[in-house]
Amino acid sequence: MTSTMRASVLTAPSTIELEERPVPEPGPDEVLVRVGSVGVCGSDVHYYRHGRIGSFVVDSPLVLGHEVGGTVAAVGSGVDAGRVGQRVALEPQLPCRRCRHCKTGHLNLCPQMQFFATPPVDGAFCDYVVLPADFAHLVPDTLSDAAVALCEPLSVGLWANQKGGTRAGSRVFVTGAGPIGVVSAMAARAMGATDIVVSDLVESRRERVAALVGATAIDPREGFDAGDLEADVFLECSGAVPALRDGLRAVRPGGTAVLVGHGDDEVMLPVTDLQVREVTLTGIFRYVDTWPTAISLAATGRVDLDALVTATFGLDDVEAALTSDDDPSSMKSVVVVGE
Amino acid sequence: MTSTMRASVLTAPSTIELEERPVPEPGPDEVLVRVGSVGVCGSDVHYYRHGRIGSFVVDSPLVLGHEVGGTVAAVGSGVDAGRVGQRVALEPQLPCRRCRHCKTGHLNLCPQMQFFATPPVDGAFCDYVVLPADFAHLVPDTLSDAAVALCEPLSVGLWANQKGGTRAGSRVFVTGAGPIGVVSAMAARAMGATDIVVSDLVESRRERVAALVGATAIDPREGFDAGDLEADVFLECSGAVPALRDGLRAVRPGGTAVLVGHGDDEVMLPVTDLQVREVTLTGIFRYVDTWPTAISLAATGRVDLDALVTATFGLDDVEAALTSDDDPSSMKSVVVVGE
Amino acid sequence: MTSTMRASVLTAPSTIELEERPVPEPGPDEVLVRVGSVGVCGSDVHYYRHGRIGSFVVDSPLVLGHEVGGTVAAVGSGVDAGRVGQRVALEPQLPCRRCRHCKTGHLNLCPQMQFFATPPVDGAFCDYVVLPADFAHLVPDTLSDAAVALCEPLSVGLWANQKGGTRAGSRVFVTGAGPIGVVSAMAARAMGATDIVVSDLVESRRERVAALVGATAIDPREGFDAGDLEADVFLECSGAVPALRDGLRAVRPGGTAVLVGHGDDEVMLPVTDLQVREVTLTGIFRYVDTWPTAISLAATGRVDLDALVTATFGLDDVEAALTSDDDPSSMKSVVVVGE
Amino acid sequence: MTSTMRASVLTAPSTIELEERPVPEPGPDEVLVRVGSVGVCGSDVHYYRHGRIGSFVVDSPLVLGHEVGGTVAAVGSGVDAGRVGQRVALEPQLPCRRCRHCKTGHLNLCPQMQFFATPPVDGAFCDYVVLPADFAHLVPDTLSDAAVALCEPLSVGLWANQKGGTRAGSRVFVTGAGPIGVVSAMAARAMGATDIVVSDLVESRRERVAALVGATAIDPREGFDAGDLEADVFLECSGAVPALRDGLRAVRPGGTAVLVGHGDDEVMLPVTDLQVREVTLTGIFRYVDTWPTAISLAATGRVDLDALVTATFGLDDVEAALTSDDDPSSMKSVVVVGE
Repeated sequence: MTSTMRASVLTAPSTIELEERPVPEPGPDEVLVRVGSVGVCGSDVHYYRHGRIGSFVVDSPLVLGHEVGGTVAAVGSGVDAGRVGQRVALEPQLPCRRCRHCKTGHLNLCPQMQFFATPPVDGAFCDYVVLPADFAHLVPDTLSDAAVALCEPLSVGLWANQKGGTRAGSRVFVTGAGPIGVVSAMAARAMGATDIVVSDLVESRRERVAALVGATAIDPREGFDAGDLEADVFLECSGAVPALRDGLRAVRPGGTAVLVGHGDDEVMLPVTDLQVREVTLTGIFRYVDTWPTAISLAATGRVDLDALVTATFGLDDVEAALTSDDDPSSMKSVVVVGE
Repeated sequence: MTSTMRASVLTAPSTIELEERPVPEPGPDEVLVRVGSVGVCGSDVHYYRHGRIGSFVVDSPLVLGHEVGGTVAAVGSGVDAGRVGQRVALEPQLPCRRCRHCKTGHLNLCPQMQFFATPPVDGAFCDYVVLPADFAHLVPDTLSDAAVALCEPLSVGLWANQKGGTRAGSRVFVTGAGPIGVVSAMAARAMGATDIVVSDLVESRRERVAALVGATAIDPREGFDAGDLEADVFLECSGAVPALRDGLRAVRPGGTAVLVGHGDDEVMLPVTDLQVREVTLTGIFRYVDTWPTAISLAATGRVDLDALVTATFGLDDVEAALTSDDDPSSMKSVVVVGE
Repeated sequence: MTSTMRASVLTAPSTIELEERPVPEPGPDEVLVRVGSVGVCGSDVHYYRHGRIGSFVVDSPLVLGHEVGGTVAAVGSGVDAGRVGQRVALEPQLPCRRCRHCKTGHLNLCPQMQFFATPPVDGAFCDYVVLPADFAHLVPDTLSDAAVALCEPLSVGLWANQKGGTRAGSRVFVTGAGPIGVVSAMAARAMGATDIVVSDLVESRRERVAALVGATAIDPREGFDAGDLEADVFLECSGAVPALRDGLRAVRPGGTAVLVGHGDDEVMLPVTDLQVREVTLTGIFRYVDTWPTAISLAATGRVDLDALVTATFGLDDVEAALTSDDDPSSMKSVVVVGE
Repeated sequence: MTSTMRASVLTAPSTIELEERPVPEPGPDEVLVRVGSVGVCGSDVHYYRHGRIGSFVVDSPLVLGHEVGGTVAAVGSGVDAGRVGQRVALEPQLPCRRCRHCKTGHLNLCPQMQFFATPPVDGAFCDYVVLPADFAHLVPDTLSDAAVALCEPLSVGLWANQKGGTRAGSRVFVTGAGPIGVVSAMAARAMGATDIVVSDLVESRRERVAALVGATAIDPREGFDAGDLEADVFLECSGAVPALRDGLRAVRPGGTAVLVGHGDDEVMLPVTDLQVREVTLTGIFRYVDTWPTAISLAATGRVDLDALVTATFGLDDVEAALTSDDDPSSMKSVVVVGE
């Protein structure tokens, strides 16, 4: 193995530079992963364009990319050497493992979380990354490199539906047919939802989600009365205030609304209506224990992650990947690092 | 038994008239109850003063009162005649029993619900009421008439805490130390909460909740930073927007906020903050299966309902009872109908 | 409508007589249903052969059959007349609606339950039955008569998996590939289970469940070590003691075992092993709120109920239907009453 | 600090020797604790008498004792030096923190668990122990040393009730009024159970649990019909087969039975009865996240742990402590190591 590697680095807003960096060494209980494919997430794009997301500010060079698949290249002490050569999907979070959240099944809420591609923690637009061995999940050879990477957005969709209580026979309303809306609808389908309605303003997105998931795709501006929907679960994936407000009206009494997309920090909400119908509103932040399920669903063909990919780029072309969503017909861009 | 009875009727906003009405007859599976004591609720006061609550409008004469205890005076067909003479606490709701909500443990959300003292259904400021036998819950003789009636507000407190997930060792934050705030704090205590903080602007209310529940009572204007509280459960019982917003900040990541009091229909809420901390926001509407618990708690002395009563009135004095909360030192007024 | 109808009646063990009986009248809130198809259940066969199941004894003539689809022929008072002509799946249980079980979402545990084809309540091997309107569930025209009837066994499978906590990505172990084992595996699949293992001693049954559900079918006598399985959920559908004991070993720590089939009343169980691995053991009895889900799953093609049917019989041939499971290659027999 | 310490070591069945051993050094993220008081558990006694518990065999010298309180004497790297001097209750389990159980809130089921006083891991009948800092829980000064140690058995009681679903108003049946039965009843009370029935064959134990917990104490041989009890929750704390079988009959339909005590590995159980009443049977093994609750309950006086102590011994007298339960009037013996 060489001692240096390529890394695509965000050095200033809208500025990506390809650097040569040392290959990291796996510490105890860690693995070194040769990066295969990396999906581009909206948060990568946001950091690239604005240099910050809320209170997370990029104030030193940062490697983006947190939807990652690859191959174990080396192991640190305490890790079975037999893992070298394994193809793995990366769960890009490093919780402290010691706080009360970590020990009670809510590691996603760990206040000391280190998360890939969130300042100041580097992500995976580079040749090699290290992470704890238990967050590198073995995948079967039948999965494509892209599908392995996209177990991350699928995890978001699974966690959203888990929080929402989606189950067999559920009616699920999804607002927004971007990548997160689509994987949320896919996850709903895989969890047994029989009636999935997705709203989006863009016709091509509606057509795609209808085709990919078998969802009923609607234009919310055209004769749609959310109050008629009586959805068991509402997943807000657009970040748009009208979508959120409409969606809350679409939830049946006793149903659940989940904030999945990000939008305005403060929104005027109909609290009395929520109260008298005992609707539950919550949101998701990262995920817990979703990779085994995501991998199983992808491996058994219940979710087709490859169908999400609309463009691929090389590691020397990350900037193009980060701006590819200028085209509204794009869905998910993937950076192919290794093979 | 006489064939007529007294009924205290709201005939127009701020107008109560004592009428003579026929004693109702219990139908199949119903009981006739000789009313003992009836608590005065904020909703009774609101109907009295404003003639409406939201979309519920008093457009014909209405008997108020839905916190009710009494004695079974007669039974309809299908009810064990041995129930005559039983002292009972009344659960003042009549769901359809046939809709999906009713059959899945959410009868409180029944769209055909008939609820005591909610237009056009009469309440219990009168000598006799009928209701389904299974909603008239047997109480032990050790409970006072007032305590029997006040199993209703205690039920609100229990349901709020149940929705909030209060359990042994919980830290519970209650905003508002009016009757509902106090019973919610009492219920939290009975469910094992070890750390209960209650905020109110009125000093006498703070003193009372501290004395009755052993809660830490705070003035939210004095050096209180909600963000430090890290409450497992937040019960909003004041209806005040600043209290709601403060309270949401007081909830720990993964905790739950419950709307118990009623205030503005629309409120500006910090949705991003809720989302990234995975806080759950919900509300309560009525209750399900709370009377057995309320009665047990009162009967075993774990909750002291008599301590809530600050004034009693006769059936010919309901108007005075309905205005007694003009005095901020008042807590719970009770109308003594029979004995 | 004629005033009499045909009814196939169990008059003594192993004796079925076709009688002429009055068509029943729908009472308030009831519907009269023209029976379409009726599935034959193992309990029907057991009553036919032995005249009893445990403490339920057939001591007067009894109409069997509780897996029922049909068409609304008339409605009682309080029911929308527009329901006449609706095709419906029948939920064959009549709970009291008033006990604590009924009001808290556990109507299946109602001590006053009246259940179709359970002495002394007649079932549906006849031209017409009445039942409460809310237990006659509207089905789409795309479902076959047999599929409508078989929403009942599918409900058993759904309830079993719900109790077991099956979810997307679950590994589910089913012992027994008879009708209940197969519908339980089908329900597991519809709820997102990705890894379903079914054991049976009979090769043809193994082949069928593998084909119908895509399950891994095993012969438990051939090199199978249950301890290796680490199942999240174990559904015992065989009634065989060795299967139950093997299955408990197959459950992962923290997993759940559900008794679905019926076998010996008392079984020697490894309680220390259950305890130290915190395995949960429970069982199912009837179901709650499963028809909407069963109908949705069948209507959207996620479950193929028609594939279960191996033979059909006329109402004058119920005896043949009840003995058709003598042939081990049979799965589900259906009695076609009307059309 | 001296470099050696006293350790009371089980060197052979029924043989305890006081040895001089090196004081251990706290590693990274660990604390060194000066042991204060240590409760004697039935498992300590069992190892002392029999040299094994099931598959756990004492095949080299072992320090017993896992109910431990003390004071932080030194900290390892990564731990706030301000913790030195803190009084702490010890959670005596060291899970791997990396397996799926550990990361989903079930660390008690970690297959790599190292547990105090379970071969080959030493316990705390010695002057000093080290453990991870996050398992040394800060306690208030108002708690006695014994109470701090007894947060461990209280944790067992809390976990048992949590598994059982005890809540406000629950009826809880406990079989066995030894230490675990009593703390389970105490925990039930603290969680709001209003009706607690405890059975034991020994009169003095019945009297004690009645006095300590306000439970109804019964002699199961005297006119007790378990079938009348209709308990929501049954906690088996005796290890006796008749108690387990009786208790299962005492559970209401839909209720839960929890194996807390240890007895025969295999027991004949009424599985059909469990199934048709949908009773859930499970067991507990260690605990998760119970110390914060246990400490809060003890600190606020809701549970009186000091009342459990019937005898105290010095570190040079551990053998006497381990045989003190020969006297049936004994409850909990405590070894006072430091002060």
